[in-house]
Amino acid sequence: MRRPDHQTQADVTAGAVLAPYLRAQAADFLRSLRLHRENSAPTDAGPQAAEQAAWALRRSARRISGTLHTFRAALDPLWAEQLRTELAWLSGTLGREHAYADRLNRLLDALHGLSGAPLPAARTASGTASASASASASADKGRAVLGVGAARAGALLERQLTLARTRAHSAALQALGSSRFHAVADAVALLASEVPLSAAAADPSGDLLHDPAGRAEQRLLGAVAALPPYGTAEPYNEAHDAPWHQTRLLLRLHRYAHEVVRGAPDPVLAGPGHALDLHRDAAEAAAAAAAAARTPRIAPTTAYALGVLHADQRHEVEAARSVFRECWPYATAAATRP
Amino acid sequence: MRRPDHQTQADVTAGAVLAPYLRAQAADFLRSLRLHRENSAPTDAGPQAAEQAAWALRRSARRISGTLHTFRAALDPLWAEQLRTELAWLSGTLGREHAYADRLNRLLDALHGLSGAPLPAARTASGTASASASASASADKGRAVLGVGAARAGALLERQLTLARTRAHSAALQALGSSRFHAVADAVALLASEVPLSAAAADPSGDLLHDPAGRAEQRLLGAVAALPPYGTAEPYNEAHDAPWHQTRLLLRLHRYAHEVVRGAPDPVLAGPGHALDLHRDAAEAAAAAAAAARTPRIAPTTAYALGVLHADQRHEVEAARSVFRECWPYATAAATRP
Repeated sequence: MRRPDHQTQADVTAGAVLAPYLRAQAADFLRSLRLHRENSAPTDAGPQAAEQAAWALRRSARRISGTLHTFRAALDPLWAEQLRTELAWLSGTLGREHAYADRLNRLLDALHGLSGAPLPAARTASGTASASASASASADKGRAVLGVGAARAGALLERQLTLARTRAHSAALQALGSSRFHAVADAVALLASEVPLSAAAADPSGDLLHDPAGRAEQRLLGAVAALPPYGTAEPYNEAHDAPWHQTRLLLRLHRYAHEVVRGAPDPVLAGPGHALDLHRDAAEAAAAAAAAARTPRIAPTTAYALGVLHADQRHEVEAARSVFRECWPYATAAATRP
Repeated sequence: MRRPDHQTQADVTAGAVLAPYLRAQAADFLRSLRLHRENSAPTDAGPQAAEQAAWALRRSARRISGTLHTFRAALDPLWAEQLRTELAWLSGTLGREHAYADRLNRLLDALHGLSGAPLPAARTASGTASASASASASADKGRAVLGVGAARAGALLERQLTLARTRAHSAALQALGSSRFHAVADAVALLASEVPLSAAAADPSGDLLHDPAGRAEQRLLGAVAALPPYGTAEPYNEAHDAPWHQTRLLLRLHRYAHEVVRGAPDPVLAGPGHALDLHRDAAEAAAAAAAAARTPRIAPTTAYALGVLHADQRHEVEAARSVFRECWPYATAAATRP
């Protein structure tokens, strides 16, 4: 669905570009919602299919939300702002369960790599742990310092993050049954058939599509240019994460705007986007390790292993920043390009 | 004191090359010993001058010891082996105090960088801490997780390593007053005037100098070729440090052999040698942090900070390996060159 360029097709209106994109995303959203509902019954195949459906649902919700934000001048502004708020709520509520599960996996994998400690029983069943456990007996000595502490830290993290995940799951189920959710679903169903465009959307696409898309790109380039230069890292200073998280959100908005205007994502930004996702995951995993270390009355060996784990994840944060810098396709000077 | 090349001066005997080198090193050793004695009185200028003298003493001892080892076929073998053992004892005894002091500095600096915690009072006097303390208030939030624990970990490390240092200082003083030490000093004094060469040392230098020097280089190249390839790192596995420490010792032996035969150190190996020194320092600092974490009845926050510190130093170990690989001047294929 590659769009014609606006220079060659100056008579294409903003609405003619925006409406099909939003209708397609809304249709995806509704299809994912149906799949999610069908697979939420406790069957064997259910959980994985439901998870995939929730992922697809959030994917569409993010695209609709980003499009409503970037191209709000071409849409009914009150309606756009309201739907955006509701989609953010839904996306956040549905994403949390998955995020806790991912975070636990990441932390247990890291602990396993750090200590050679066996993974908790629930994860051993997958076969990953038994394969690694027989890896190298000679490595045991060097890792002994983490042994007991790592096992306890893993059990503590599993307890805390599984509890958080269970709560998030209940919250998601509750949200899906709420009248607030049904109102969002109705709004998206309406969007799938008719997009509430503003009067200006009948104008040629230049001002209302390319200008906002250009501004979204400028905000991204500005944010990247303002990131601290390579080598100024203070690996353990979480206060410095914010501009990176902000860059991740701006990259996402730019990506969706690019999809709307050009009909396809900007391929050179896939690598940097992935690096910023990893950055976010590692930063949140580090924070979860630090939070677990604040549990009252834990053993010093547990706290020690959590400290090692925290530092390891913060180094993953730094590594993700390096990868981002290496695969960012523009020179620093390009960040100020017109 | 660049030596003539053996291809152009085939009539130079091994003894004519070895003896002046050993005599010069022995003279350096004796000069450093006198300086050390003169500055060991408790005066203001004393400690630093004594430390410099001890450093120079160990520098000569290592070179004599390495030369006795590599070129033992050109020397009285029983005498060479005995003096080597005694020099290793002396060098180890004198080096320990300094090593503990360096390790403490490295760990406190790392803790300071990790946590922004003020350095212990004794170190604040140098002015380093006060400059950094006023650095950035906004950084405080992110570092708060390490705050109290880092301060306690620093105090614990300072207590343990200062105690170890004090013991090493007493042991060094005791060693310097022992009859064993006087016997080493006498042996080196004898070496400064007459080198106990073997009968074979009257032969041309080819077999007895260049061949052993070549073998020392081969052992180094073989050890480097056997190091695990880039990317196979298990950062926290101290059991994998041994081949790197061994490479460091072999690089040193090669360096001294090069000095003997060519009259100057091999300049391309300064960088890799420095990287392996840093590797050793970081590995030992990490071990000290891990050892401190095994102190009974420490608070979980202390243990947590020691875990972060341990991981940080293990990452320094990895960083040193990367630097070594980057500045190693030969391709892997060159490690098997004849």
